[in-house]
Amino acid sequence: MNVTVNDLRKRISQARGKEKADLVIRGAKIVNVLTHEIMEGDVAVCDGVIIGAGGSYEGKETVNVSGYLLPGFIDSHIHVESSMLVPARFGALLAARGTTTAIADPHEIMNVAGIPALEFMLESGKKSPIDLLFMMASCVPATPWEHSGAVIEAPVMEEAVLSHKVLGLGEMMNFSGVLFPDNNVLEKIALAHKAGSIVDGHSPGLSGKDLAAYAAAGISTDHECSTVEEMEERLRNGMYVQLRYGSACLNLPDLARGVTPGNAHRCLLCSDDIQPLTLRKRGSVDAGIRVLVSMGIDPIDAVSMASHNAAVCYGLRDRGAIAPGLIADLVLVDDLSRLNILKVWKRGVLTACEGECLAPEPENTDYGPITKTMHVKDFSEKKMKMHLRHGLVRTIRIIPGGVVTGEKIVQVKTDPDGDFVFDEEQDVCRLCVVERHQSTGNVSCALLSEYGIKRGAVAASIAHDSHNIIVAGTNTADMAAAVEEVIRMEGGMTAVLDGKVLASLALPVGGLMSERDAEYVTRHLDRVQNAAHTVLGVRGDIEPVMTLCFLALPVIPVLRLTDLDLFDVRTMKFTDICVD
Amino acid sequence: MNVTVNDLRKRISQARGKEKADLVIRGAKIVNVLTHEIMEGDVAVCDGVIIGAGGSYEGKETVNVSGYLLPGFIDSHIHVESSMLVPARFGALLAARGTTTAIADPHEIMNVAGIPALEFMLESGKKSPIDLLFMMASCVPATPWEHSGAVIEAPVMEEAVLSHKVLGLGEMMNFSGVLFPDNNVLEKIALAHKAGSIVDGHSPGLSGKDLAAYAAAGISTDHECSTVEEMEERLRNGMYVQLRYGSACLNLPDLARGVTPGNAHRCLLCSDDIQPLTLRKRGSVDAGIRVLVSMGIDPIDAVSMASHNAAVCYGLRDRGAIAPGLIADLVLVDDLSRLNILKVWKRGVLTACEGECLAPEPENTDYGPITKTMHVKDFSEKKMKMHLRHGLVRTIRIIPGGVVTGEKIVQVKTDPDGDFVFDEEQDVCRLCVVERHQSTGNVSCALLSEYGIKRGAVAASIAHDSHNIIVAGTNTADMAAAVEEVIRMEGGMTAVLDGKVLASLALPVGGLMSERDAEYVTRHLDRVQNAAHTVLGVRGDIEPVMTLCFLALPVIPVLRLTDLDLFDVRTMKFTDICVD
Repeated sequence: MNVTVNDLRKRISQARGKEKADLVIRGAKIVNVLTHEIMEGDVAVCDGVIIGAGGSYEGKETVNVSGYLLPGFIDSHIHVESSMLVPARFGALLAARGTTTAIADPHEIMNVAGIPALEFMLESGKKSPIDLLFMMASCVPATPWEHSGAVIEAPVMEEAVLSHKVLGLGEMMNFSGVLFPDNNVLEKIALAHKAGSIVDGHSPGLSGKDLAAYAAAGISTDHECSTVEEMEERLRNGMYVQLRYGSACLNLPDLARGVTPGNAHRCLLCSDDIQPLTLRKRGSVDAGIRVLVSMGIDPIDAVSMASHNAAVCYGLRDRGAIAPGLIADLVLVDDLSRLNILKVWKRGVLTACEGECLAPEPENTDYGPITKTMHVKDFSEKKMKMHLRHGLVRTIRIIPGGVVTGEKIVQVKTDPDGDFVFDEEQDVCRLCVVERHQSTGNVSCALLSEYGIKRGAVAASIAHDSHNIIVAGTNTADMAAAVEEVIRMEGGMTAVLDGKVLASLALPVGGLMSERDAEYVTRHLDRVQNAAHTVLGVRGDIEPVMTLCFLALPVIPVLRLTDLDLFDVRTMKFTDICVD
Repeated sequence: MNVTVNDLRKRISQARGKEKADLVIRGAKIVNVLTHEIMEGDVAVCDGVIIGAGGSYEGKETVNVSGYLLPGFIDSHIHVESSMLVPARFGALLAARGTTTAIADPHEIMNVAGIPALEFMLESGKKSPIDLLFMMASCVPATPWEHSGAVIEAPVMEEAVLSHKVLGLGEMMNFSGVLFPDNNVLEKIALAHKAGSIVDGHSPGLSGKDLAAYAAAGISTDHECSTVEEMEERLRNGMYVQLRYGSACLNLPDLARGVTPGNAHRCLLCSDDIQPLTLRKRGSVDAGIRVLVSMGIDPIDAVSMASHNAAVCYGLRDRGAIAPGLIADLVLVDDLSRLNILKVWKRGVLTACEGECLAPEPENTDYGPITKTMHVKDFSEKKMKMHLRHGLVRTIRIIPGGVVTGEKIVQVKTDPDGDFVFDEEQDVCRLCVVERHQSTGNVSCALLSEYGIKRGAVAASIAHDSHNIIVAGTNTADMAAAVEEVIRMEGGMTAVLDGKVLASLALPVGGLMSERDAEYVTRHLDRVQNAAHTVLGVRGDIEPVMTLCFLALPVIPVLRLTDLDLFDVRTMKFTDICVD
């Protein structure tokens, strides 16, 4: 933290009581995660830095409170893009829930727009009321089986990593590139080591010597544990475990059973992917603490997991506890189990109160380099036609409740040209991916079963991880109209019937984020989802758009559609629609 | 840690068992300070890095052992100069006791020779079998009341601090310069903050708002606690507490009572000042663990205080535990209470066995810039004559068992010129300090009581913290001969009687360190001490030379002699020998 001699002079003078402190918070029980104690007394703040905790101070401003004062929460791993909000706006939602620092991996937007996207996220993040710190996306493109908007190898990363613009290298999803060593992958890891920076992990299912090798390469964290056994194995291998409590991944109560007094210091909290509505209604890191405490974890350990432990893991010396010299990021809660967030101070400024962020609307950021990202060439309805040799086909089968898909072999109707003919009785529809980064003109087609759609089309420019345009529908006319609407909006999501747009949400920032606020985004997302469910007939137990958004991700079993073709994750090969 | 792609490739391959590990240690119980568990299984090492802990591995070399395998110890605060050995040699003594990393503050030698001394310590440290990491001495000169060999303000430090040649700013002894802010002091602290580096503290007796202010300035550690209350207050203020177990400071058992399961993670071990003989006979950090365990501290907590906690405090991501990806610094002990050090591996190389360091003798380092540091001008016996107005004088009184002195008013005999006349009945002798850095020609005189000397003189070029030549004796002829001997040796210590040298130890490296090995230094130190005790009659309950070495330190109560004059630490002013 840069500080001038005059800053220090003022800080010391106020700390010694020679002049009044800028701010005194009086009456709270102070949770000291460093000594594992609850202390009495004032917390005094000068220029946004804590200068005393536990004594009695005179303040220029004194706030009398009751409740428990906690260090501001640190969300140790988050993808801002999942909120569909720009960082400047997303921060307000986190602040309202007591998160004052979030460590964000801009993996999605960097797959669209590369280093300029990182620069945008950094700039926009600075306008947020909290500290959004960024990692360098490690896997751009995410896989070799699709077209994305950027290629980021080690040399391209170098400036940002070595100058510590980023905290380190983001989650290394390409774990097979580590284990079956790929020079490009190792070069990125070596670069992070050279910078003395952390490398985040992502190692679902990895175990035994493979996990040890992944850790031995210097990868320090994991947020993908699904069982206590996986968690324990990662901790024993020296990795920090980030317990995740997002919108979709809800196994925190299970993992809480793996936290012990001896390993709690290596456990952090994170949300990974969280939507504005979840944040509003349930919370993120705050909700995680609540779950941990309800599962019997010592509340001070739980608070430490949400603050100090993450500061240690990411080398943030200037925060993570309530003690002199640390940034005055503070959260007042009613008690340590209900954990209602009453007030939040960011650098000593009251930033949220009773769940509402008080920070002013952020100024606009220059979206220049990451708008107009719909580089679609020669798109036409015709490109969505299929030429099947026969009607016995493998379809991508929707499995509710997660992002894993199945394979379902069905007999479909075809027309004389071999194109798929929709049959409402059968619950199979057409799925297409339209490449939108490199003007390749690629449009790929496949069939999707058990999506439930009865009419019209749903499209989105969010399609992990390369974020081409994905569209599902019963007929190519509506599907083409939906794609055209997404292109017209410069990205977004839409539901279309009979050539008419039923509802849309524009996401012109890289095709992933809106420039509008959370309320706007939530309302329009809700309209699109609602139209898809009630008008188009998409089954009620899935999110109609978000479900599509994961169908292009060629790393999660079993069948996926990239802009190139249908991909079988079991064999890691492209496959044919027709079953021979 | 810099690592190449090929390094990573080899590491991953060995970790996955695709090729044999360079080294496998089999049969030990593995102490995992990260999960607070004791694990079974092999520890596998590749290129000095741990690649697996707890599984079963094939090794190019396999060592079968029994006992407990601990992470190599980290001595969190040490002054190499106190050993009178150069870093290249001192490391061997630490290695033999399981310390594989030491964080050294070159305060003494930098007071003699400034930045070139730091460069020498860094270079010599690299030839040591362990990692000697250095802090930037923060207080050069230590006080304004004496002449030292260098002045190091913030601009002079800048290159080393910002390039991270040093881990941070060394112990800020000048706490009054923090509390009553001195721009030079604050500039140094601001520089460390700019580098994102730690600032070590030194705050004996500081409490309440003054302590909070010291911490608020961003000072993170303290190793000067004398009571559990002081320790608790520092921990609550967010400071790490370094529990000290050196040659002279032995209050670790008292402080151990302040360690709790909740605050242990903020407690470290250090030796501060330790002599080769103590290291040989008792140990340092290893001995500290033994004491902690004997006081009922959980052994894994104690081991963590000696390793992981220090790594966290000093931001050493690459060590401090036994886990894949960390440096293979390993200590095998018989059990967790006796803690006999059986074997020590540094970066996977067996470096000590049964208390003996196996590393080869270090090559010579170029001592060039820090030899020939005896810049004494126009020294003569006459300069030691005093001109007392009368014989009622204040003397510096030796108090055994510490470095605090007393004041004793006595009536002494004087000759017609007002010079002091020694009287064996009275146990008062002459004490002089001869400036040796800046050729000022300064020689200051005072009187010393209860040193016990009956004849001859004792002199040394170690005199904290400015390290001028200090000499005590019954007559100026022997005192002058002793000073001449120290000058002749280019620094060192000596005992002289009737103009003849009884015993000497040359310390030509800055006047503080020998270029010889521990055995040589210990033997010659012993001879000097022995001569002083048995021939010259210095009292038996003090160390004759080391006691002198602290008599020039004008920050410890109550009376001191600098090269300028007699100094009263109670008033922080020079004072008169004659009592009016």
